[in-house]
Order: sequence, then structure tokens, then C-alpha cells
Amino acid sequence: MATDKAVETSINIPDTKSKSKGKAPLFVSSNGGVEPPQRRGVKKGLAIGDFILRLCAMGATIGAAVTVGSAQQTLPFFTQFFQFQAQYNDIPTLVFFMIANAIVTGYLVLSLPFSIICIIRPFATTPRLLLVIFDAAMAGLTIAAASATASIIYLAHNGNPNTNWLPFCQQFGDFCQSVSGAVVGSLIAGALLLFMLILSAFSLKRS
Amino acid sequence: MATDKAVETSINIPDTKSKSKGKAPLFVSSNGGVEPPQRRGVKKGLAIGDFILRLCAMGATIGAAVTVGSAQQTLPFFTQFFQFQAQYNDIPTLVFFMIANAIVTGYLVLSLPFSIICIIRPFATTPRLLLVIFDAAMAGLTIAAASATASIIYLAHNGNPNTNWLPFCQQFGDFCQSVSGAVVGSLIAGALLLFMLILSAFSLKRS
Repeated sequence: MATDKAVETSINIPDTKSKSKGKAPLFVSSNGGVEPPQRRGVKKGLAIGDFILRLCAMGATIGAAVTVGSAQQTLPFFTQFFQFQAQYNDIPTLVFFMIANAIVTGYLVLSLPFSIICIIRPFATTPRLLLVIFDAAMAGLTIAAASATASIIYLAHNGNPNTNWLPFCQQFGDFCQSVSGAVVGSLIAGALLLFMLILSAFSLKRS
Repeated sequence: MATDKAVETSINIPDTKSKSKGKAPLFVSSNGGVEPPQRRGVKKGLAIGDFILRLCAMGATIGAAVTVGSAQQTLPFFTQFFQFQAQYNDIPTLVFFMIANAIVTGYLVLSLPFSIICIIRPFATTPRLLLVIFDAAMAGLTIAAASATASIIYLAHNGNPNTNWLPFCQQFGDFCQSVSGAVVGSLIAGALLLFMLILSAFSLKRS
């Protein structure tokens, strides 16, 4: 009986070793499993990277929203009845762009605590999955807003002779430049959100 | 010595049980670990769902590309020098839309074998991570193309009096309707790709 148990232990050892389970519980993960310190370090690094990217994306979206919201240009000449002025609510797409970027900024602020939880507990899967679901939705929203505005601002720069849509960026150059900058910022934020999704997949994966 | 080993074995038993490792290796995962059949079933279900969604997204993107590529309308009246005609290459955004949807269709076809590998080997992480990385890029491309075209087709329907861009959908109704349908298809494909990313995160997660 005693030898039987001893044999069973010696069978189990390579299996527990390949799953990196030592005899002493060095670090206990949320599901009760025991994880080695170097894998914990990698996961923690990924979580810290996610947090930093989240801050960068937040800066980009808040910058984009504020830039478009405050972009305004009045031409130095006017007629008796009319003053030539451009601001974001002349173009419905820019209103959508500003609202979408504000929503994404709000989401990113609210997601920071979850990101911090993922740094403290690198093996917790529930907050990570929550972040994945909402990150995917917000990445879609950011990219949609940025590319819709990009197509409108392309039209404002170049016009389209086939449809008789004339460009207005010769007149409202500063306005167009502000909006173009905001579009670039928002596209970068969208790309960062997609990159965060990939990082999350790596940090969720079984080693 | 013998009692010492026996005690150690009795400590280890609940741990191996909580990770659902029986004495007999029922199913061996790619990393040499032993996995229970019910978890394998869940992962396999997720992989099959991913494959079906991939087929749906493929149908949506190929439909969108073909619809826009073949959308053409000629008005029944013409002058001596001019014939009123609308097709996709009158608007640069529609050219981008068609190319982007064709690229995504091609990617989805090429990704099917990897999806099948994930069905056969539900615990393999490498093909799944590859799919996550490229799915994220393609989701971005699809959503960008769809929303850029959506903003242009909104302009074609409603126009914008502030910028003197007049709508042309009263004249070219059939053309506008084809493109609008294609935009909806492409947006659905983008949403499906984001949903596949979430499914991949669930199937990568440690239980």
C-alpha cells in the first residue's frame, strides 16, 4: 500500500512539473491554482502595458473631442446678412465624432480601476474578460467615428466634382486642420484599443 | 519516510481535483496537460461558433463588395454632351469600401483552415492567437470602410446646406439604395469580427 502510493507520487511529479506546480505554493491564483513567479511577472507586465496604453488612448480621445468641440473659424469678411463661420455643429458627422470620443473617454476612465485590479491580480480572468467585451465595443465606436469624419474631411479638402460637392478648406483652413488632427488622434486611440484587445488575449492565454 | 510521502499525496489530491485532473489522462492538451471532457466540449463549441460566424461575415463582406462594385445607374435623360450616370468610382470612398471588403473576404477565406484547426484542437493557443491578431486588424478595416461610406451616403441622402453639398439620392435612388444595403452588410461583418474577438478571448481563458 505504501509502495503503491509512492509509485503514484512519482508518476504525478512530471505532470505537476510541466504545469509548473512546485510543492510549496509560491503564489496562489484566483482559482486556487499555484503559479510560478516568472509567469506572474509576464502577466503583470502585460497588465501594466494595458494600463499605460489605456492612459494614452484616453489622452488621444479627450484631445480629439476637445479639439473638434472648440474648432471654430470666422472669416474676416461678411455681407450685410451673412457672416462666414465654421464650427463643428455645421456638419452632423463632427457632432457624432465629438460625442463618440467623449463616450470613449468616459469608458476609459471607468475602465482604469479594472485595469488596476488586473495588475494586482494578474491571473484573475473575470475583470479581464469584462475589459475585453467593452474594449471591443469601444474600439468599434472609436474607429467608426474617426473614419466617418476622415471621409468627410477628405471631401472638405478635395471636394468631389462628380457629385458637385465643392471643397471649403481653402477658405476655412484652420478649421480643417484642427479637425484633421483630431481624426488622427482618434484613429490612434482606435488602434490602441485594438492592440489592448490583443494584449488581453495574450494575458488570458493558458501557457 | 513512507508516511511522509503519504501525507504529501493527501495534500496534493484536492489541488489536482480542483484543476480537474483525474488519474487517467482522458484528453491530453497540446501543452501536455490533461483536460476534462466537459471543458473540451465548451471550447469545441466556441470554436464551431467562431467558424460559423466567420462564414456569415464572409458572406456579408463579399455581398457588400459585389453590390457596390456592380451598383450603377444611368438616368433616362441626357443632353448632347453629357449622360447622367452614377457608379462606384465616382466617389473615392466607395472605391476604398470595395477594396477593403474584398481584402476582408480574402482574409476570412484564408482564416478558415486556422478556424478548423481550432475545432480539431480546442486547447491549441497558437492558431487562436494568430486569429486574434489578424481578426483585430480586419475588424478595424471593415468598420472603418463601412462607417466612412455610411457618412458619405448620409450626405448623398440628406446633403448639407451649411457646406452647400446637395443630395443626389432623389435622382439616383437605386444607386443609393444599393450602397446603403452594402454599408449595412459591411457593418454587420465588422460587428461579427468584434464578436469573434470576444469569443476567442473566452476560448483562450484559463478556466
